Amino acid sequence: MAIEAARLSPSLAAAAFLARRPPPALSPFSLSRRFPLLRVLASSSGGDGRVVALSSSELRKRRGLSSSSGAAADSASDGDEKLRSLRRLFARPDVSIDAYIVPSQDAHQSEFIAECFTRRAYLTGFTGSAGTAVVTKNKAALWTDGRYFLQAEKELGHHWTLMRSGNHGVPTTSEWLNDVLPSGCRVGIDPFLFSFDAAEELKDSIANKNHELVLVQGMNLVDEIWGDARPNPPKEPTRVHDIKYAGIDVPSKLSFIRSQLAENGCDAVVISMLDEVAWLLNMRGSDVPHSPVFYSYLIVEVSTATLFVDSSKVSKDVLEHLEQTGVKLKPYEAIISEVERLAEKGAKLWLDSSSVNAAIITAFKSSCDRRLKRKGKAGKKVGEKEASSDDPITGDPGVQNLVISAVYNVSPVALAKSVKNDAEIEGMKNSHLRDAVALAEFWCWLEEEICKSVPLTEVQIAEKLLEFRQKQDGFIETSFDTISGYGANGAIIHYRPTPESCSSVGSDNLFLLDSGAQYIDGTTDITRTVHFGEPSPRQKECFTRVLQGHIALDQAVFPERTPGFVLDVLARSSLWKIGLDYRHGTGHGVGAALNVHEGPQSISYRYGNLTALQKGMINLLLVKELNLANSFGGISYLGFEKLTFVPIQSKLIESSLLSPSEINWVNDYHEEVWEKVSPLLSGHSRDWLWKNTRPLLDV
Amino acid sequence: MAIEAARLSPSLAAAAFLARRPPPALSPFSLSRRFPLLRVLASSSGGDGRVVALSSSELRKRRGLSSSSGAAADSASDGDEKLRSLRRLFARPDVSIDAYIVPSQDAHQSEFIAECFTRRAYLTGFTGSAGTAVVTKNKAALWTDGRYFLQAEKELGHHWTLMRSGNHGVPTTSEWLNDVLPSGCRVGIDPFLFSFDAAEELKDSIANKNHELVLVQGMNLVDEIWGDARPNPPKEPTRVHDIKYAGIDVPSKLSFIRSQLAENGCDAVVISMLDEVAWLLNMRGSDVPHSPVFYSYLIVEVSTATLFVDSSKVSKDVLEHLEQTGVKLKPYEAIISEVERLAEKGAKLWLDSSSVNAAIITAFKSSCDRRLKRKGKAGKKVGEKEASSDDPITGDPGVQNLVISAVYNVSPVALAKSVKNDAEIEGMKNSHLRDAVALAEFWCWLEEEICKSVPLTEVQIAEKLLEFRQKQDGFIETSFDTISGYGANGAIIHYRPTPESCSSVGSDNLFLLDSGAQYIDGTTDITRTVHFGEPSPRQKECFTRVLQGHIALDQAVFPERTPGFVLDVLARSSLWKIGLDYRHGTGHGVGAALNVHEGPQSISYRYGNLTALQKGMINLLLVKELNLANSFGGISYLGFEKLTFVPIQSKLIESSLLSPSEINWVNDYHEEVWEKVSPLLSGHSRDWLWKNTRPLLDV
Repeated sequence: MAIEAARLSPSLAAAAFLARRPPPALSPFSLSRRFPLLRVLASSSGGDGRVVALSSSELRKRRGLSSSSGAAADSASDGDEKLRSLRRLFARPDVSIDAYIVPSQDAHQSEFIAECFTRRAYLTGFTGSAGTAVVTKNKAALWTDGRYFLQAEKELGHHWTLMRSGNHGVPTTSEWLNDVLPSGCRVGIDPFLFSFDAAEELKDSIANKNHELVLVQGMNLVDEIWGDARPNPPKEPTRVHDIKYAGIDVPSKLSFIRSQLAENGCDAVVISMLDEVAWLLNMRGSDVPHSPVFYSYLIVEVSTATLFVDSSKVSKDVLEHLEQTGVKLKPYEAIISEVERLAEKGAKLWLDSSSVNAAIITAFKSSCDRRLKRKGKAGKKVGEKEASSDDPITGDPGVQNLVISAVYNVSPVALAKSVKNDAEIEGMKNSHLRDAVALAEFWCWLEEEICKSVPLTEVQIAEKLLEFRQKQDGFIETSFDTISGYGANGAIIHYRPTPESCSSVGSDNLFLLDSGAQYIDGTTDITRTVHFGEPSPRQKECFTRVLQGHIALDQAVFPERTPGFVLDVLARSSLWKIGLDYRHGTGHGVGAALNVHEGPQSISYRYGNLTALQKGMINLLLVKELNLANSFGGISYLGFEKLTFVPIQSKLIESSLLSPSEINWVNDYHEEVWEKVSPLLSGHSRDWLWKNTRPLLDV
Repeated sequence: MAIEAARLSPSLAAAAFLARRPPPALSPFSLSRRFPLLRVLASSSGGDGRVVALSSSELRKRRGLSSSSGAAADSASDGDEKLRSLRRLFARPDVSIDAYIVPSQDAHQSEFIAECFTRRAYLTGFTGSAGTAVVTKNKAALWTDGRYFLQAEKELGHHWTLMRSGNHGVPTTSEWLNDVLPSGCRVGIDPFLFSFDAAEELKDSIANKNHELVLVQGMNLVDEIWGDARPNPPKEPTRVHDIKYAGIDVPSKLSFIRSQLAENGCDAVVISMLDEVAWLLNMRGSDVPHSPVFYSYLIVEVSTATLFVDSSKVSKDVLEHLEQTGVKLKPYEAIISEVERLAEKGAKLWLDSSSVNAAIITAFKSSCDRRLKRKGKAGKKVGEKEASSDDPITGDPGVQNLVISAVYNVSPVALAKSVKNDAEIEGMKNSHLRDAVALAEFWCWLEEEICKSVPLTEVQIAEKLLEFRQKQDGFIETSFDTISGYGANGAIIHYRPTPESCSSVGSDNLFLLDSGAQYIDGTTDITRTVHFGEPSPRQKECFTRVLQGHIALDQAVFPERTPGFVLDVLARSSLWKIGLDYRHGTGHGVGAALNVHEGPQSISYRYGNLTALQKGMINLLLVKELNLANSFGGISYLGFEKLTFVPIQSKLIESSLLSPSEINWVNDYHEEVWEKVSPLLSGHSRDWLWKNTRPLLDV
C-alpha cells in the first residue's frame, strides 16, 4: 500500500492541481514534494547549458528504446507487426491462449526496471512508468493513469485503445476482459511479472465469466517477438556497502531474520524485493536506473542463506564478504528449483505474497501438493493462508490437523529496513548536507542565468543540476528522473521534460524542481518551487498555505503507534480552508542509500496503511523520540527532525497569512540552513545563501 | 461503531486522564465533553439544595433496584440464592445448558433501558451501564470496563469474579468460556438480547472448543428467577412529534425508505432501533430514561407498514396520526410471527444484522429454509450474506442461481436520521438557546453559593441544575445522568455521584459538569469545567490545550466525504505537544429530540468508522456547507456552526499559549453568546453573563 501510494504520488506537487481552478486564464501554480522550500536571488556567473551528463533513465531511453523502435518513434506498421507476431504465438500448442496481459513490472515489483524488462513499452510504444497492456485476438488496449494520458495519446499507435484509469466508466483490465471475450476463454500472463496476490485477484475476477488464468511458463511472449533486438539483462558489478554506512553487519541482520522465522514457526523466507536483498546483505549494485540494487533473490534458512544472482556480478571483494557471512551463491534462475527443493523436504516457508511473484509461489505450492500426494495425504489441505502471524493456527485445537506449509505475511525485512540505525541516519544527514551544497550552488547559478536572460530549457536546467551534484563526494546518480517544470508543466505530477518538447524557463511563472540523488551514504529527494519574477497574490497564497501545512506537519508531536494517515490532515487543513487540496500523498519512506520510495509507512489521505510511524523512520523528515514533560499512557511521544537544508523562497511567502509561530519557524529554519550549509560554500553561492536565509520581517 | 464509540465515551472529559500523570500529588484535572466552555463569577442569591426532582434513572435506581434487592444493598446470601436458582434452570429438559450469558442490553440495542430489562443488574447487583455476566455450573463472572471497576468491586457479592475488561491478560467472555468449560458444552443466551452479528461472533468463537451456542427460546432465565418482583414492562403513552419540529411528514419518510427498498431489490425492512422507529413515524414516547422512545418494532413493506407496539401506549391522537399515514398496528410480541409470515411468502428482507436481534433473524432464516424445503429446493443456499448493497449479487451471472432472501446492510434509517432537516436544525438551535439560559442562571446561582461557602454536594448541584432546566419551555427530562464531578471525580469518565458517597464542591479544585436535556424540539449535551478559586498553572495549561483543540476542530474546513476520524487529530495535537492525550472519542452524533448518542458518524481516534461527515449532521457542532473562493475537485467543502452558547471560564485560559487568532475565536464566541443569550436573561444572571463574556486581553 505504501509503495503503491508512493508510486502514484512520488511528488508532493501540492498545488499542481490548483492550476485546474477556473478561470483558466490564471497561471497554473505548482508547489513541491515534501514542501516547497526554495528561494533564489539574482547575481552573476556562468553556465553554458551544455549537456554534461544524463540520468541513467535518460540514457536508457535514448539508447534502448530508440534502437529497438519501441518508443514514440515507433511507426504504426511496426506496431501492427508486433501485435500480429504476438497473436501468432497465442495459437502455439504449448501456449493456447485468447488474451495476454503485459504489465510494467519486472519479477521483483521494482519501481525502476532494467531495459530488457521494459516489455510493455516495447510492445506498445508508450514509455511512461505505469501502464498495463492487454492484447486479445482482435483488440489491444493500454491502461494508464492521469499522469500519462497526454503522453500515451502521443506515443500509442492507432492499433491501441487508450484506457484512462480513474476516469468515470473506464473498466479495469479484468472487467474489460470479461466484457470483450466470450465466456470461457484462456487469459495468459507471465507468472514472474505478477505478485502472487495480484495473480490471484486477477484469477478470481475473470472467473466471473468462466475465464481461466493461464500461467504461461518457460517464456515471455514479448521477449519472443523482441528476439535478438532485446537488450541483454544487466550484468553490472555489485559492491559491498561499507559497514560504516550500513551500521549493522550481515550476521546480525540474518540473526534477526532467523529470530523472526523461529517466532513464526518457519524454516525459511524468500526475499524478492531487490532493496530488501541489498539491505540485508549490505550490498549495492547498479542494474536499474536510480536505485543501487541488483537483480537477485535471497533465501534465508535457519542455518544457511543463499543468494540467487548472476555470478559475473560478484567480484572477489563481494564474494569474500558473502563467504564471511555464510551466504552461498546460486544462479539467479535457480530460484524456482530451490523453492521446489524446500517444498520437497517439507520446509515451512515465509512468503510475502504481495511481493513474491506467482511463478515462485505456485511452484512451491505444486511441489507441496506432489509431496503430500506421495505421502498419501492428498486429502489434506495444503498451503492454507494464515490470517496473520499473530494468529498461529497451531495454537488452535480445532484445526490442528491442517498441513500448513507456508505463512503468508509481509516480509520481515520491510519494517526492519524502514527503521534506520544510527549509522544510516548519520549517512542520510551527511549526504543531505552535500546535496544542500549542490543545490545552493545550482540555484545561485540558475538565478544569475535567468537574470541575464540566458535562454534555458527545463532539460538543460536538469542537466546542469546533475553537474553540480556530480561534484559532491560520494555521488552516484539521480534517485529518480528530475521533475523540472515551468508554469503549467510544474502542475503535472511526475512531469518529465524531453529535449524535443520541453519549455524554456523564464521569469513570468513558477518553476518547480523536484529531484534527488543517490550518494554512497544516503539518498535524497527534495523539491523547491520558485519564481524568478513577481509572483501573483494567488501564487503567494497557495504557496504559503502549502508551507503552513509543511510547518504543521514538521512541528507535529504524536503518540507512538500513530499511523501516518492520522497526520495527513495537518498538511492539508490550511489549503482546505480556501477550498483547495492536492491529489496525492504527503510523505513517503526513503531508503538509506537505497530506493527513494520505500514502505511500509506513508503519510497519505488514504486510510488503508495502518503502519505506525516509528522512531528512525525517514519521510524526508526523520522520526525521533521526544522527551516531554508528560507521557500520558506511559508511552513515547514522537516528532520530526529536518534533513533537508535548502532555503524556501521568501518572495513566495505571504507573511500576513502566517502566525507569529509560523514566522519563527521559517526564520529558525533559515538560520539552521545558514549555520549548517554556509561553512561548505564560498563565493557567490555563499552570498546567495546569506541573502536567502535572511529572516522574514515580523508582521 | 459510532454508537459503540459513543457508549464508551459519552463524555469528552478530556483531561480526565491527565490526572493519572505522576506525581500523584498534583490535582486531578478534568475538562469537558465537546469542549470546556464555562466560566463562573461570584455574586449573591438563593438555592437551598433541596431535592426538587430526580432524573428518571435516579428514580429508577431508588425504586426498582432497591425494592428488588438487586443493587448494592444485595446481601451475599441473596446473591447466592439467585445464582442457585439460575443454575437449577440449567438442568430443565427444555433448557439443558452448561452456562448462560446475561448482557446489559434490551432487545433493541438501546443505550438506556427500561427497568424490567435490567437483568444483569438484578442478577449481579452491579448497577453500572455496561457489563456482561456469565454463569457456569460452578463459576460466576462479570465483565466491565475501566469506568466501572471501583463500582463493581463495591457492588458485586463474593460469588462473583470481576473481570476487568481491557486490562492486560483479561480474557474475553468467550475466551473464558473456552478456558473454564470442558470441550463440547452448551452455552445459552436469550436471542432477543444479542444482535444477530454478536450472536454469530459468539457462536464462532466458542466453536473453537466445540461448544454449542443455544438460543434459549420462550423465556429469559433471569426473568424466571426474578418472578413477581420483576417490574412490569413500561406502558407509558406515546405522542405525535409535531411536524413543525419533525420537518418531514411520515409519508415522505416512508417513500424514501421504499425507494431504498426498491434500489436494493428488497420487499421489506425490519427497523428495530427504538430511535429509528420514533424518527420514521414522527412519534415519541417515554419508556426508557433519557430518550424519548417507546418499545416497538417497525416493518416497512412496499405498500404497507406495521408498527409492533403495546396498543395501550397508543392514544387516539397517535392512532389517527398512524392511520393517516397508512401504518397498521400489531402487538409488540407479534414481530416474530410477522417475520415468519414474510419468509413464508418469499419476501426479501433488508436486515441490519448489527442491530436486529438474533431471535428475529434466526426465525426468518428458519422459515425461509422450511419454505424452500417444501418447494423442493432444499439444496439451494438461503440467506447468503451480501457484502454490501453496492455489490448486488444478482448482477453477477456466476451466482445468479443462489436464492437471496435477505440483504444484510446498515439500516436505511440510520444515515437519513443523522442528517438533520431545516426544522430539526431550527429546533436544535432553539432548544440550545433555552438550555443556555438555564445554564447561565444555574452557573450564576452556583458561583454565588460557593462564594458564600454554602456547602453543596455534587448531587445537590445536579438537582439544582435540573430545577433551572425545568423552568424552560418544552423541557422533558435529562438526556443522560448528569456528570457532576469535583476534583478527582471529574476525571472519571461517566462519573455519576450518589447521595451516599458524593463529594462536596469547593473552591480548591476543578469542577466538571457534563449534562444535557430533552426538550420538545431538541436534545442538548454540554460540558463546562470551572474553578471557583485559583487554578494552578498546570490546570490552566491543560484546560487551554483542550480549548485549542476545540478551536482547531471548530474552525476546520474539510472536503465532503471526509470521515470524522480524519479531524480527530486537530482536537488532540495541542495536547500531544506536551505528551498528553485523552482516552475517548472527540465527538458523537446527537439526535434531534431523540437519543443523545447517535450514529452513524463519529469523530474519534478509532479508524474503523468510515462514515463521512455530512451537511446537516450534528456533533454538537452542526456540519454546514461553506461557500469558498475555490472548490478543488468540483466538490463541496464543509465546516461547523456552533450550537451551544455558554461562556468558557476565562480564569482557566492561559492566554499566553493562544495565538492571536485563537484569542479572537474566544472573544468572538463570547460576543455571540452575549448577543444570543442576554436578551433572554435578566437580573443577576444577565450581569453574570456580561462579566463572563468580556473579551480576553490581547497578549
